[in-house]
Amino acid sequence: MKAITITEPGGPEVLTWTDVPDPVPGSGEILIDVAASAVNRADVLQRQGFYDPPPGTSPYPGLECSGHVAALGEGVRGWEVGQPVCALLSGGGYAEKVNVPAGQVLPVPEGVSVTDAAALPEVTATVWSNLFMDGGNATRSNVFMVAHLRPGETLLVHGGSSGIGTMAIQLAKAVGARVAVTAGSPQKLAECAALGADILIDYREQDFVEELAKATDGAGADVILDIVGAKYLDRNVKALAVNGRLAIIGLQGGAKGELNLGALLTKRAAVTATSLRGRPLAEKAAIIAAVREHVWPLIAEGVVRPVVDRTVPMEDAAEAHRVLESSTHIGKVLLVAPGA
Amino acid sequence: MKAITITEPGGPEVLTWTDVPDPVPGSGEILIDVAASAVNRADVLQRQGFYDPPPGTSPYPGLECSGHVAALGEGVRGWEVGQPVCALLSGGGYAEKVNVPAGQVLPVPEGVSVTDAAALPEVTATVWSNLFMDGGNATRSNVFMVAHLRPGETLLVHGGSSGIGTMAIQLAKAVGARVAVTAGSPQKLAECAALGADILIDYREQDFVEELAKATDGAGADVILDIVGAKYLDRNVKALAVNGRLAIIGLQGGAKGELNLGALLTKRAAVTATSLRGRPLAEKAAIIAAVREHVWPLIAEGVVRPVVDRTVPMEDAAEAHRVLESSTHIGKVLLVAPGA
Repeated sequence: MKAITITEPGGPEVLTWTDVPDPVPGSGEILIDVAASAVNRADVLQRQGFYDPPPGTSPYPGLECSGHVAALGEGVRGWEVGQPVCALLSGGGYAEKVNVPAGQVLPVPEGVSVTDAAALPEVTATVWSNLFMDGGNATRSNVFMVAHLRPGETLLVHGGSSGIGTMAIQLAKAVGARVAVTAGSPQKLAECAALGADILIDYREQDFVEELAKATDGAGADVILDIVGAKYLDRNVKALAVNGRLAIIGLQGGAKGELNLGALLTKRAAVTATSLRGRPLAEKAAIIAAVREHVWPLIAEGVVRPVVDRTVPMEDAAEAHRVLESSTHIGKVLLVAPGA
Repeated sequence: MKAITITEPGGPEVLTWTDVPDPVPGSGEILIDVAASAVNRADVLQRQGFYDPPPGTSPYPGLECSGHVAALGEGVRGWEVGQPVCALLSGGGYAEKVNVPAGQVLPVPEGVSVTDAAALPEVTATVWSNLFMDGGNATRSNVFMVAHLRPGETLLVHGGSSGIGTMAIQLAKAVGARVAVTAGSPQKLAECAALGADILIDYREQDFVEELAKATDGAGADVILDIVGAKYLDRNVKALAVNGRLAIIGLQGGAKGELNLGALLTKRAAVTATSLRGRPLAEKAAIIAAVREHVWPLIAEGVVRPVVDRTVPMEDAAEAHRVLESSTHIGKVLLVAPGA
């Protein structure tokens, strides 16, 4: 088969469409004929040499895909060859075929094309596991310290027009929360509003702590979903409400920052940080099962939809990375495999 | 009545046994004839002028007491005049009488003297609300982001011989956790061991991150109960296990510290900070109800006991503060009211 390989750490141009050996599904795995993959920030870091794949996983980039079941490994039940699916991967999505543990596979939801389904696994699993997984599931699956966003609460989403952001807005609105977003242009904010966002903050022109305080009578955000990390840490704590929860899922603004524990203690607030890729298989499977149970019906009903900025031929992954790095996209950038 | 008043911010000598007006119980309140109160770090901060009582609460120090019900305010049911009780206060425990919302009152547990019961409300409520309150309770009562220490997990308690520490050790052992403690002398560590602590770390001689790693095959602590704050923040994050929860309940080592979000994210870990005093009445009542349900039976069975360092006449509160500030005590320092 062919896959995008990283010839050496560097710019988008190091992504090369190359002949590689076909994967063979191991015990408990499903082999997928890939229709599409999607580009994530982690892929850019991996390309730059800053984020090696976990041991034992595919060396090619790509943390999610859609396609059709090509073969079932030993012991896999409940899936059929040819069935349209999408999957959360630990890598290897930028390829014609990929192996994945069966617990990370989902059916393509009703009303979504096979290609567009590649936009769903990472964002739904990330948002659901950080904001919504219930205490019962959390205890059973070792997924701790979820933010438990609840009806009537206010969620602040940084990067509201990103893939994660567009899904977080929709899911939070679906459970009855009020949603504030930050984004870097009026056009991006308009897209967030179209998805249901209530409070729109242009971070290039406005201070999000001030704007959020104005919009919430000084109460602040019950939950913040953050991709910035250190650069926003102090202001995020300021923006939190009493009993607030800051859920950090990315470190685009640095990894080390000053934390005001006095403010955190007065607010009885919490800071959590998670990544999906490093979780053990059992946790990923628990998250995917919860997504299938809670998010898939919302997609089938048309309440929540994948937001796709554009599709790019998989061979041109370099072009897709340039789009992501320019931050001009809204929603997900998909890579479509040849012939899909 | 008489109460300890703070003539002006300063050293222990500003604590003065003074004639003050008798309190009258308001609607929903219980008036307690105080037998004993207990000294907390927060009282020292209040004496120094760094921690004003919340608006509407007693200006005298004292966050807990024991005694007998003296009178019931309007609408209070389920308590009888003369009944031995103890209570979580927002202030005013250093006095002959104090008013308290009925939701913060507990019966004196079976097998505990009325005086010793003054050692229980703060430590049981703090430890239970931070480490154990279950998800169901948390959702109903707005008490979020509890560390959920579970059987088989490892808890690290900083200041194991403090009032909080001695209760945390006992409750953690009672639920089947493994307990590591730090303390500042071999004698204090021996007392922690007598209460059940498994891993003993002398912080004056040893590095707790290293010692904990050795004792846990490198895994670290699933939960850390911390009273130090900024000074320990970086090392506490290093000492956390994957899925670890750092519960900060004091800032004796400063309020602002650098947080390594990269380490937190890799471990999928959480930092929470809480204080009991600032919680709204409904949260305090929910915590006290949970303590009565879950901790009181353990005390009645003799599994958990109050650890009392010494009793001091309430008029000599200055002496009790000197003991607390010298950090030579083990467990709680109690103030006994005249005639009790």
